[in-house]
Amino acid sequence: MSKSVLVKFHPDDIQVDVKKGISVLEAAISAGVYIDSICGGRGKCGKCKVILKQGEPRVDSKEHLTEDEVSKGYVLACKTHVQDDTEILVPEESRLGLHQILKSSEVVSLGELNPLVRKQYLEIEPPTLEDNVSDLSRVERELEEREICDTCVSLPMLKKISKVLRKKDWKVTLTFADAGRESTVVDIESGDTTDKLYGVAVDIGTTTVVVELVDLTSGQVIDCEADYNKQVMFGEDVLTRILYATEEEKGLSKLKKAIVSTINYLISALAKRNGLRRRDIQFMTAAGNTTMVHLFLGLDPAQIRIDPYIPVANNLPFIRAGETGIKINRSGYVYCLPGRSSYVGGDITADILATNLHKNDELSMLIDVGTNGEVVLGNKDWMVSCSCSAGPAFEGGEVDFGIRATVGAIERVTLTPDLEVKYSTIGNVKPKGICGSGLIDLLAELFMHGAMNKAGQLEETGSKRIREGDEGKEFVVIWSDETNIKKDMVLSEVDIKNIMRTKAAVYASCSVLLKSMNYKFTDIKKLYVAGGFGNYLDVRKSVYLGLLPDVDTDLYSFIGNGAVAGSRLVLLDRSKLEEAKEIVRKMTYIELSVNTMFYNEFTSALFFPHTDINLFPSAKELLA
Amino acid sequence: MSKSVLVKFHPDDIQVDVKKGISVLEAAISAGVYIDSICGGRGKCGKCKVILKQGEPRVDSKEHLTEDEVSKGYVLACKTHVQDDTEILVPEESRLGLHQILKSSEVVSLGELNPLVRKQYLEIEPPTLEDNVSDLSRVERELEEREICDTCVSLPMLKKISKVLRKKDWKVTLTFADAGRESTVVDIESGDTTDKLYGVAVDIGTTTVVVELVDLTSGQVIDCEADYNKQVMFGEDVLTRILYATEEEKGLSKLKKAIVSTINYLISALAKRNGLRRRDIQFMTAAGNTTMVHLFLGLDPAQIRIDPYIPVANNLPFIRAGETGIKINRSGYVYCLPGRSSYVGGDITADILATNLHKNDELSMLIDVGTNGEVVLGNKDWMVSCSCSAGPAFEGGEVDFGIRATVGAIERVTLTPDLEVKYSTIGNVKPKGICGSGLIDLLAELFMHGAMNKAGQLEETGSKRIREGDEGKEFVVIWSDETNIKKDMVLSEVDIKNIMRTKAAVYASCSVLLKSMNYKFTDIKKLYVAGGFGNYLDVRKSVYLGLLPDVDTDLYSFIGNGAVAGSRLVLLDRSKLEEAKEIVRKMTYIELSVNTMFYNEFTSALFFPHTDINLFPSAKELLA
Ligand code: FES
Ligand code: FES
Repeated sequence: MSKSVLVKFHPDDIQVDVKKGISVLEAAISAGVYIDSICGGRGKCGKCKVILKQGEPRVDSKEHLTEDEVSKGYVLACKTHVQDDTEILVPEESRLGLHQILKSSEVVSLGELNPLVRKQYLEIEPPTLEDNVSDLSRVERELEEREICDTCVSLPMLKKISKVLRKKDWKVTLTFADAGRESTVVDIESGDTTDKLYGVAVDIGTTTVVVELVDLTSGQVIDCEADYNKQVMFGEDVLTRILYATEEEKGLSKLKKAIVSTINYLISALAKRNGLRRRDIQFMTAAGNTTMVHLFLGLDPAQIRIDPYIPVANNLPFIRAGETGIKINRSGYVYCLPGRSSYVGGDITADILATNLHKNDELSMLIDVGTNGEVVLGNKDWMVSCSCSAGPAFEGGEVDFGIRATVGAIERVTLTPDLEVKYSTIGNVKPKGICGSGLIDLLAELFMHGAMNKAGQLEETGSKRIREGDEGKEFVVIWSDETNIKKDMVLSEVDIKNIMRTKAAVYASCSVLLKSMNYKFTDIKKLYVAGGFGNYLDVRKSVYLGLLPDVDTDLYSFIGNGAVAGSRLVLLDRSKLEEAKEIVRKMTYIELSVNTMFYNEFTSALFFPHTDINLFPSAKELLA
Repeated sequence: MSKSVLVKFHPDDIQVDVKKGISVLEAAISAGVYIDSICGGRGKCGKCKVILKQGEPRVDSKEHLTEDEVSKGYVLACKTHVQDDTEILVPEESRLGLHQILKSSEVVSLGELNPLVRKQYLEIEPPTLEDNVSDLSRVERELEEREICDTCVSLPMLKKISKVLRKKDWKVTLTFADAGRESTVVDIESGDTTDKLYGVAVDIGTTTVVVELVDLTSGQVIDCEADYNKQVMFGEDVLTRILYATEEEKGLSKLKKAIVSTINYLISALAKRNGLRRRDIQFMTAAGNTTMVHLFLGLDPAQIRIDPYIPVANNLPFIRAGETGIKINRSGYVYCLPGRSSYVGGDITADILATNLHKNDELSMLIDVGTNGEVVLGNKDWMVSCSCSAGPAFEGGEVDFGIRATVGAIERVTLTPDLEVKYSTIGNVKPKGICGSGLIDLLAELFMHGAMNKAGQLEETGSKRIREGDEGKEFVVIWSDETNIKKDMVLSEVDIKNIMRTKAAVYASCSVLLKSMNYKFTDIKKLYVAGGFGNYLDVRKSVYLGLLPDVDTDLYSFIGNGAVAGSRLVLLDRSKLEEAKEIVRKMTYIELSVNTMFYNEFTSALFFPHTDINLFPSAKELLA
């Protein structure tokens, strides 16, 4: 038997008993301490730096660490294996603070309240020797009188029916779930409980998970809770997780457990705070990208990343909660919104439901920028979609001081003409790094002030903030004494190149969709921007950089978290379920990875704002 | 922590580690040693006598034991609690030998082979970038081409589909189960496996369980296995088990486990012997009385024994094997044949299916005598049914030397005019006791030779076999030196009274059904006798005693195990499922426990053959 050792994490003072030999990163996962680990613990990203305070662990690699850092006790959490009782300090820059997660969103309002679960109060005739049909038949007889037919009962319900019927004088309330073609009796309770009917709508994001608790009798969202997807520990983006699922032992099952426990934790918190039992929640709808849905249900995601990119399923059946591990009423159902392909998932279907793009007369475009970028173009008659791997440049990846939109992230930047920096951070604390909207602001300001050229190179302006760094030129955003990380916070030309690639991919996606349908940007009459990134975005600055198309800013709507909104719509109105299926049936998917037009568009977009400045008249005007 | 002790059972030399303090009976259950225990371990029946060979157990009661027995070390297994390592000898008379279980039966032959599960071989188009729909959609597309629609997939199937499709070049075989309104994909396998499709048909008897392994491609029964229902340890009849389920801690769950493990054990033995994996078996149909089905599924049986005798359900849904604990393919289904009431269960429906009584033009009667007696009267237009608690007189209960039809049981008896006994035993070994058919023979012979009168009293004939015993007169069937139990084997007048009550109950049931429909015995054109008891029965002798109605013996058919036969019919031909439901819809149930006509009929039948000898013309002739 392997010995167990104690690992203590500072500054939170959380300790955990673990098997000797496991990595500090794994210990952190089991302790619930969030350490940045974009590469999924493969020693490749260098994000998981921690400081060893006590213990003599086995250190497998010192890559990504400067000599100075090594001398200060820095190690990579993923490459350091505990051998004895160990104490670890997780420095600010390696911590995943609690995200500012987009919980709700303003979306189309519900037409009709017609939820996927409903309750029916019944007064059953007590049995006599003359009328001695079974408990179940008595209930069915009563249902038939109300013309509720074709119901199917579950074993757990049969196990309790006898006692429940007799508890409150043959008065009971049945809960039905419409799971596909049949209506299933999910629960039976004594007395009249028709005023209590709940569901949860879930956004299974790659990075964060949002759960809404919904009162299905009123259609109101009662409460909402969000947290990191615990899978973050196993890698930042979907490809890293697919690799983990397919190549690590029990990888898939670990990833499944991580997301299921994230959702369960949030449901449990919501139930507690609102005085409910978890079994009072009878239905869950969820939207996520195709990989997230695969990992959530334990479906093999291997083919998603291998040409020709085939998922196990896009249209999933209703699945009993008990089978998924989700701790609501175990006879209740879980339904994941259908997706279109491996890279245009149920989250995009939810976005479309939330915007009603599929009902618009006019040409509309939806842009969802997250770790991936997905774009949909269309109207009530047709839709085309595509996905580009935007890269996590706007979510803290690929940029040295890039962090997610968490406390301490710079979210707004303006520059004075002599390039002095004015900024604000989330939570008004000392800056830890720059998040997506801050990067857009910063680049646009540098560009507009002539400190960055169209090719993304920094120009000498005389400001001491522009200097030669290790990787070419860099711009000092914050001097070390103002930061929380005791270093100058800089943006290098390498960082700028990465951001440029991301924005080029998004723009090129929009462009390809339009061209393939013979439209121009100016034909667009509605432009929806979705995703956590969206709500903090300055449209004009995004346009100057060439991230978003240069159309009238009035045409833009920010829909925030469309995934949870779309899930909620399906939960509350069963007709939305058919709409969701209709959306994926109707929508064409264009695979960009083999699309030459995309590569041309992408290359042309590798300028600020674009090689063809005429596509960006407002930027042209500004630069004139 | 409680200490564990070792208990060894002789003569089988089986030993088991158990918790200190549990009863010898419980230890025997966990060791798989069968000890008779009609009262379910409540110290009431005195059947569980064993001999203590070593150890110092706590003995809670010496009831039912003679002084002589106590001095020889006899204890009641259920009232003796082990405190240290213990050795126990289980004497012949307390052992449950392996039954001669009626495994198969000659019944209606199958019309059409149209089983509840079927397979479909598919060659799927491999994906390309142009045709990149999901794995599931590819399969569904192929099914649609074959006009197989409205299928629903299970999560376990989705979990494997990706690998299975790619294993043998996109050639796969799907298994479908028709579970209610939908057709469910139960399994997917690589390559063409359409020649392998199996199901099991099960008879869940109160005493014994029979499992047939059926090849669903040919309709042939491949193999058959039978064993005691492990629930026997918890009590002999359904009422004792209901009491155990409702009054003992975890009683229901113990009973459920006992029957599920009995069935699993038999399935596992059949699979092994025939070179199958258990997951190759995709469907199970089962027939049992209403209580057995409740206990099997873990449904609360409490109301079955309480006026007005209401079961949880008579018509059960299809249930996933995984949910029942049955170890066949976990996505496969278990279906229990529908019953009519708490005391006319799915086993009777199976009997009817097996006889085609429900399709007969002529008036037909079905008599199923087991621990209970059930009678059905009717034809293709109508059916009435009833149940009487016949008592276990013919199954080893209520008769001192009565045993089940196991090895060592006397099954045939004839008497010479001077009352010398000629007999044969099952297995041709020394007699251990008398089973049902032996008792019928014996009583009929005594009656015919004038040694027993109509009231069931023994008459002095000069034979030394008729003597005064502890409980009035008795007839010595076997002298002690010929037996295996070292005692004279006797039949007392008390035993005879018990048998008379049983036969009176069965006959009265037949009589009530006829009278309530305004028919006479002579109107019957077909008479089916079912149950383990049936096949050994001498019809004429049963008639002389007034157990079976005095009609032309040519009208009698013995159908043997109708429960397993009916289950098999449903498994092989889905139209039989609808017939089964139609049978229970059509059949009227008459509750005898409150029926005054029944009490009159019963009382009149408390004679051999009957108070009204004219009802038994052939007996009248014989006695004349
Ligand atoms: S280097 Fe440790 S997680 Fe990437
Ligand atoms: S007396 Fe022990 S089982 Fe009945």
